[in-house]
Amino acid sequence: MYSGITAPKARRLPVESWGFRSVPPPCQHRQPLITGAHAVLATALCVKACKSFRLQKPRKFRQRSAKTLRKALTDDISQAVDEVGNTLEDAVLHFSRLPAWMSGRESTAEGSPPAGDGSDGRRKVVVLGTGWAAHAIAKIIDVSKVDVIVVSPRNYFIFTPMLAAASVGTVEYRSILEHIRSSNPTIGYCQGTCQHVDAEAQTVLVRPFPEGADQDFTLSYDVLVVAVGLRPSSLGVPGVDEHCFFLKNIDDARRLRKRVTLNFEAADLPGKSHEERQRLLTFVIVGGGPTGCEFCGELSDFVRNDLRRFYPKLAPLVRIVIVHRGATLIPDFGESLQDAAREFLETQGIEVMTTTKVVEVEKKQVHVASKDGSDQKTLPCGLVVWAAGQIGQDLVRDLHKTLPRQKELAEAEAGGNDSQLFVDEWLRVCGAPSGSIIALGDCARPAGTAQFPNTAQVAAQQGAFVARLLNRQYDLAQPHPVLQEGAAFMPMALFRGQTEAPAFRFLDLGRLAYLGESKAVAELGVGETTVSRAQGLAAFVLWRSVYIVKQVSFRNRVLVLFDWIKSRVFGRDLTRI
Amino acid sequence: MYSGITAPKARRLPVESWGFRSVPPPCQHRQPLITGAHAVLATALCVKACKSFRLQKPRKFRQRSAKTLRKALTDDISQAVDEVGNTLEDAVLHFSRLPAWMSGRESTAEGSPPAGDGSDGRRKVVVLGTGWAAHAIAKIIDVSKVDVIVVSPRNYFIFTPMLAAASVGTVEYRSILEHIRSSNPTIGYCQGTCQHVDAEAQTVLVRPFPEGADQDFTLSYDVLVVAVGLRPSSLGVPGVDEHCFFLKNIDDARRLRKRVTLNFEAADLPGKSHEERQRLLTFVIVGGGPTGCEFCGELSDFVRNDLRRFYPKLAPLVRIVIVHRGATLIPDFGESLQDAAREFLETQGIEVMTTTKVVEVEKKQVHVASKDGSDQKTLPCGLVVWAAGQIGQDLVRDLHKTLPRQKELAEAEAGGNDSQLFVDEWLRVCGAPSGSIIALGDCARPAGTAQFPNTAQVAAQQGAFVARLLNRQYDLAQPHPVLQEGAAFMPMALFRGQTEAPAFRFLDLGRLAYLGESKAVAELGVGETTVSRAQGLAAFVLWRSVYIVKQVSFRNRVLVLFDWIKSRVFGRDLTRI
Repeated sequence: MYSGITAPKARRLPVESWGFRSVPPPCQHRQPLITGAHAVLATALCVKACKSFRLQKPRKFRQRSAKTLRKALTDDISQAVDEVGNTLEDAVLHFSRLPAWMSGRESTAEGSPPAGDGSDGRRKVVVLGTGWAAHAIAKIIDVSKVDVIVVSPRNYFIFTPMLAAASVGTVEYRSILEHIRSSNPTIGYCQGTCQHVDAEAQTVLVRPFPEGADQDFTLSYDVLVVAVGLRPSSLGVPGVDEHCFFLKNIDDARRLRKRVTLNFEAADLPGKSHEERQRLLTFVIVGGGPTGCEFCGELSDFVRNDLRRFYPKLAPLVRIVIVHRGATLIPDFGESLQDAAREFLETQGIEVMTTTKVVEVEKKQVHVASKDGSDQKTLPCGLVVWAAGQIGQDLVRDLHKTLPRQKELAEAEAGGNDSQLFVDEWLRVCGAPSGSIIALGDCARPAGTAQFPNTAQVAAQQGAFVARLLNRQYDLAQPHPVLQEGAAFMPMALFRGQTEAPAFRFLDLGRLAYLGESKAVAELGVGETTVSRAQGLAAFVLWRSVYIVKQVSFRNRVLVLFDWIKSRVFGRDLTRI
Repeated sequence: MYSGITAPKARRLPVESWGFRSVPPPCQHRQPLITGAHAVLATALCVKACKSFRLQKPRKFRQRSAKTLRKALTDDISQAVDEVGNTLEDAVLHFSRLPAWMSGRESTAEGSPPAGDGSDGRRKVVVLGTGWAAHAIAKIIDVSKVDVIVVSPRNYFIFTPMLAAASVGTVEYRSILEHIRSSNPTIGYCQGTCQHVDAEAQTVLVRPFPEGADQDFTLSYDVLVVAVGLRPSSLGVPGVDEHCFFLKNIDDARRLRKRVTLNFEAADLPGKSHEERQRLLTFVIVGGGPTGCEFCGELSDFVRNDLRRFYPKLAPLVRIVIVHRGATLIPDFGESLQDAAREFLETQGIEVMTTTKVVEVEKKQVHVASKDGSDQKTLPCGLVVWAAGQIGQDLVRDLHKTLPRQKELAEAEAGGNDSQLFVDEWLRVCGAPSGSIIALGDCARPAGTAQFPNTAQVAAQQGAFVARLLNRQYDLAQPHPVLQEGAAFMPMALFRGQTEAPAFRFLDLGRLAYLGESKAVAELGVGETTVSRAQGLAAFVLWRSVYIVKQVSFRNRVLVLFDWIKSRVFGRDLTRI
């Protein structure tokens, strides 16, 4: 038990279970901070929107009336106005943090995180994870109001949408990472894995990473934020865990990059048969979502632009196959873009197998069949990338056992699936005492309503929402969180009509996918209004602009930009390290 | 047996053993290619030399007369004149290779290296290794005259003098690497390890890397070039192999970087005792040569500039200790610079322990004693870096067993040490039939004369020498290699008086070492003439200029320069990947 963090039991109110009221969607909290680059992009989009404005109805809203759509547009505008307030709030906070950035974080005890003993009245918040949600919290949280410790075995945030690019060397690994201490030098960080949550005692058991070096210890909390995400799942297909490569973290990307170059070197060895060379250079990607399609595009670029130069006789043997269970690739996009995506991939020579499932993966081949199980085929291959399924972390399953309400909800709403925690409109975990546990990102799903997509966009918005909920000192123990007397945010809350905390509402800004050969598909919008739907080179330029803007720091923007120039001028690096 | 490379037995002459005539030092072959940046540096050095010219006598020549020194200077000038010829030769070759660079290498058979079957009259050369020596060969070799295959488990060259910088993130790994296929796209490469050399049959047995994936195969050769270097050795100290970190290749640098940040994270965990924190943050470096000293300097920079920002309370606990067996650090440098180096390190708070040897290394501590064994001390520590000893590769030991002449020489000259192959003035391995094996770099030592230093400079010069020996088509089977009738180089050789091959002579250009806090020591010269001896900031600027110039490609120059700027502006990256 770490002495600096043994707190007196925190304010606890008798509310033990949470109702799920349907709250009208108020303003929402979307982005960490508006940067100059954001502004430039926003202007460009507005100009485009003004020039050729047409309300493109997303598929799911096609049956709605024009009136409903106008209503949605009005909501979006009111949200945009509200967002200005949030952004100003964040900006003030960021500037107040500048001295700490310049000099290093303000640590109170030797080597310890800047944790108080509860005597300074700050709520102690333990954040589990360093993904999109946790990182957004770290960026926006105000340590003068909240005492934060992040616990994660991984001391950095990954810009996951660019993992596919990193796995072939279009960008370098470190260019898409940010150290959690760099993202906010005023918060605390413990390198470890949370093993167990004691919801009653409000403590977490942490095992230092790497395992075995140090003893487990306990941290107490007033608010626990669970943002541990999901991990790849084999979906019960035999051989996946043993033979497949995933695309979830940096080690995956590194293994993948190493393996692609290894396969080329192996195929180039003397004495190899033509069939063996062909097998080594057959790459099978399972899963036709954005991750799978982007990896296909990046791999195809890598082969065409770089590997062909050094292995001119091997390049014609390369075969890239994408296997997808559904009828169309990138199912979240509009139909025209789905067709365009398929066309882009096929013109590069990538074989697209839709309505096809993987039956078994072996070391040197993969067995596929059509969706109904007929038409079984065997593909000899040198590499299988699995971008198909995800499953809950052990910690989430453990919490399902601890909290009976979660089990009930899982059975009622998700067929007993315990991969995600059910949360209310303020992202508080249902059944946790006094609103003391918050879950967000991929490991959370709203109880009673439709699930949010498992995307970085949702996680980042939820992170910002939670950070502001904590910064503003809403009393989370109330069924509907309200401001406590004397909260610093009170004057502003009265002005903005937010003495009761607004519930979380996801504002969809669209989606992008790169498909190789400088072509992409893009669907940008605000909420239910699609502003622009682009494909080909235009979408590629949009993709690059958005990804540069969305980088989490100025440093990363510079590095990614430099990497793009570097890989264009000098080619991708083939060294096998 | 790879069919493309089963050659008819090559020209073999009855000369089976080699005399060691003392040849007057003629012209020599020094640098891969003079670049624009080389020229700028050379001009700057000349200006400096003209301004304040003083013939600084290196230690070993201090007892020599002025006449001898003048003679040495005259030799150097004649060498410089000769070098112009070599450089022109290389330049013509490089330009003739441009089309291949643009379009990819010219491969003759599907997936095979561009190996002929001997029918085209080119000598088949197998090069073992991708270090300094092998890389210099790859850069300069002319595939129109020689059919080259490089065999190595590592498909890239490492700029080893910057490994210390890479191990703390001052530069990135890939910035100091060059893929062997990029360095010369016209040569062949096999990713594997040479297991055995059959000197009589002139074949090598290659095991593909990674082991187990493919079957061993055989390559035949006319000339075998052994450039496999040395590997780190524990010097018989117990615990070194189990607990020490080395600094020899990229994986070492990566492990080291990861470990330093891991130790800081571990020390920052709650519940740690002061002693344990101090232990974790004590870094012991064994070996006071340039590698050990440079790592000390880089680590000290890393702690002072970056880690102190994020772990302000831990920074004062950091302790860096350098343990050196000899009386003075960096023994190859002049005395004044040795003193300066010690002073630079000590002013940064680094503890320098000279005339001290390591007795044993344990997991959490290292036992040291004074050189005579008295005054034993135990240092609790979190990390031990071993930069002290090197030993021969298995292949070299195997060759010692195969070639009786090597064993004789090892016993006569090296006390039975079989770490290096004894070579004649043209770097041909003594006792190998028909001059068919050449050894160079760290794994070679001249028979009968003083050993060259085990430096990158020697290896690169030897590589260039061997490449020109092969390009010019000297008959290596003759005791003194002579040009064959009809060799393309004959007219030029007659003009330059080189119908008999000049022997290898090492031209010492000086040495540099970085010591932290933007301070370095530098000793630059030509042969036996020291032109400049600098220390402090001036030497640091010189160090950076020389290292930028000496990068093996334009790409690497740009990347290293960018890395320097990046780590200065944004700090070194702390993510543990």
